[in-house]
Amino acid sequence: MILVMYHDRLARLKERMAESNLDAVVLTSEPNMLYLSGYSAISLERLLSLIVFREHERACLILPRLEESRAEESCRIPDVEFISYSDVEDPVAILKEVLARNRVKNLGVEGVTPYRFIHPLISSQPAVNPCFIDETMYSLRVIKDDEEIRTLEKAAEINNRLMVDAISHIEAGSSEKRLSAFVRSRALELGADEVAFTLIQAGPNSALPHQEPTEKKINKGEIVLLDIGIRYRGYYSDITRTVTFGEPTQQQRKIFDTVYQAQAAALAAAKEGVKAEAVDAAARRRISEAGYGEHFIHRTGHGLGLEVHEPPYIKEGNITALARGMAFTVEPGIYLVNKFGVRLEDNIVISDEGHINLTKLPKSLSIREYV
Amino acid sequence: MILVMYHDRLARLKERMAESNLDAVVLTSEPNMLYLSGYSAISLERLLSLIVFREHERACLILPRLEESRAEESCRIPDVEFISYSDVEDPVAILKEVLARNRVKNLGVEGVTPYRFIHPLISSQPAVNPCFIDETMYSLRVIKDDEEIRTLEKAAEINNRLMVDAISHIEAGSSEKRLSAFVRSRALELGADEVAFTLIQAGPNSALPHQEPTEKKINKGEIVLLDIGIRYRGYYSDITRTVTFGEPTQQQRKIFDTVYQAQAAALAAAKEGVKAEAVDAAARRRISEAGYGEHFIHRTGHGLGLEVHEPPYIKEGNITALARGMAFTVEPGIYLVNKFGVRLEDNIVISDEGHINLTKLPKSLSIREYV
Repeated sequence: MILVMYHDRLARLKERMAESNLDAVVLTSEPNMLYLSGYSAISLERLLSLIVFREHERACLILPRLEESRAEESCRIPDVEFISYSDVEDPVAILKEVLARNRVKNLGVEGVTPYRFIHPLISSQPAVNPCFIDETMYSLRVIKDDEEIRTLEKAAEINNRLMVDAISHIEAGSSEKRLSAFVRSRALELGADEVAFTLIQAGPNSALPHQEPTEKKINKGEIVLLDIGIRYRGYYSDITRTVTFGEPTQQQRKIFDTVYQAQAAALAAAKEGVKAEAVDAAARRRISEAGYGEHFIHRTGHGLGLEVHEPPYIKEGNITALARGMAFTVEPGIYLVNKFGVRLEDNIVISDEGHINLTKLPKSLSIREYV
Repeated sequence: MILVMYHDRLARLKERMAESNLDAVVLTSEPNMLYLSGYSAISLERLLSLIVFREHERACLILPRLEESRAEESCRIPDVEFISYSDVEDPVAILKEVLARNRVKNLGVEGVTPYRFIHPLISSQPAVNPCFIDETMYSLRVIKDDEEIRTLEKAAEINNRLMVDAISHIEAGSSEKRLSAFVRSRALELGADEVAFTLIQAGPNSALPHQEPTEKKINKGEIVLLDIGIRYRGYYSDITRTVTFGEPTQQQRKIFDTVYQAQAAALAAAKEGVKAEAVDAAARRRISEAGYGEHFIHRTGHGLGLEVHEPPYIKEGNITALARGMAFTVEPGIYLVNKFGVRLEDNIVISDEGHINLTKLPKSLSIREYV
């Protein structure tokens, strides 16, 4: 069953390689390796690469020697040759040799591959001709199959429970960092494999979208923004809620309502056949009409899958038509520098009936609504 | 004081740029940006780049709009122009324009920079000529100043206490994953900013050096290997201890003693003027003499700093002479596949008197020695 899935993914990649006239593809990134083989590793500075040939059945995995046992156990590609190297061998030399032996000229490469691995390939004789394979890989990955959707659902379920626990845990005098430490530990107890980030931001810090938790204490009357990303069996959930610790002010209410309505408009627009940019426009229009257009400083959302940010990007200029199986965030926000910010972020999957919202949580400034 | 430090680092980089005839350098990686400016961010797919010109005082930081407030607050470069871009603008086009406007031909680039950011620069007219700047950057970073050594010491202190707590927490029936969750949470309580990894491996899993924690339960008589990496104010500590849960077998004792003696030999060799490869050879010789040479499948160590793996690499072929201020791990290991593995890892800094060992912990198979 699982082997059939990996076989199919490989077959679809090879079809695309034929269309693009690529002799081989070399993959080095964790998400693409996981997608095609079920295996990857934190290889840091050591090159880990999977080579798929258009003409040969047998793929090739070049890997550090200390990864050999794990790779043999978990790699699901039906026919693969393992070439392991020691810490004193040069993996790029091995890669060059493998490509030369197979007479590879047109080589699909990933945009994220470090330049130091590409440079020796394009400056050698005969040089390979690198062509970006990202669009192809993402076009395969962007449509999630039923098994992937089940995994995304499970990741979201963990994150929903985690958000409730996090909000329940807000207390006077606790710092952003302390609450963040609680969330990280609780995430693992709830079954997450990894915590990608826990942005807990109180008061003015909530106006800085990517600010990491600080020693700042949470005070009565302040906005608390919680943006939590976790990973489960390779797949991400990424949700945000914003509450006030105590009674909200009128300005806090007004900003929250505007973001709420912007998100509702974007969600209403999110269904099969609609362009990604139309979902962004729906949210943006609502915020601009309320007079806060310049304070909505990011796109409305991003795809979710084996990466926490991947296509489809929900932004102006993206004319991709949404299709069944696409999974992404819907997360408009308004940021008033030196005051506070508000963001609401749900995770959805496009379905036959519009979309399924995986984020089954209240949307309210009031902590009481969550606990 | 701090500003002087960043000014000095920039000045030293510019000297090297003059020697290598580089017009500018573009940095995109977190450690190099932190080293030169005190600022960095998790930018994921969004390009974040710092451009330093040889001739102009004013550096340039190209960054996503949602990073602007944070960057202005924390960037310590005395003279810097911020160019922020929205989610619908192309940061590489901005980078190209900045380079063209400043007539940059020879451009220092990092090996880790994703190829998709380099490709547009080398295929444009006039094309820039990219030259790797890594050796230069690492040659600056490899010698830690007193402030950096104090930070490494503090990171090690947190990790030492964490290891004791982790070993004290080993109990029958607990899984690797559960112990790992405890360690992650405790790390943050002890003051770590980030947990890089917690490899908790019981029984046969300890023979797979990079195996992530699994649901496997820890049983009486089994080896438990704990490899913990944490970050404090940007700097890493990375230590390993191996214990048995219960009475060790004779084979476990024999392997542990061999690793212990190999590490002692490597530590004895680690002082100013000695080549990095000689430290590796000292450990390897001891293990080979005991008949386990083929089971020591990795290098003896790696540098520690703003990256958890960086120069100096303690391995065969590295003839770098150790110098005062170099910080690295010493971590020989023996791995018997399907049985168990043993590794001991300390963090040291080369000093006038040989070296300082930052890992102030017992070395024993017995849990009692730690608690």
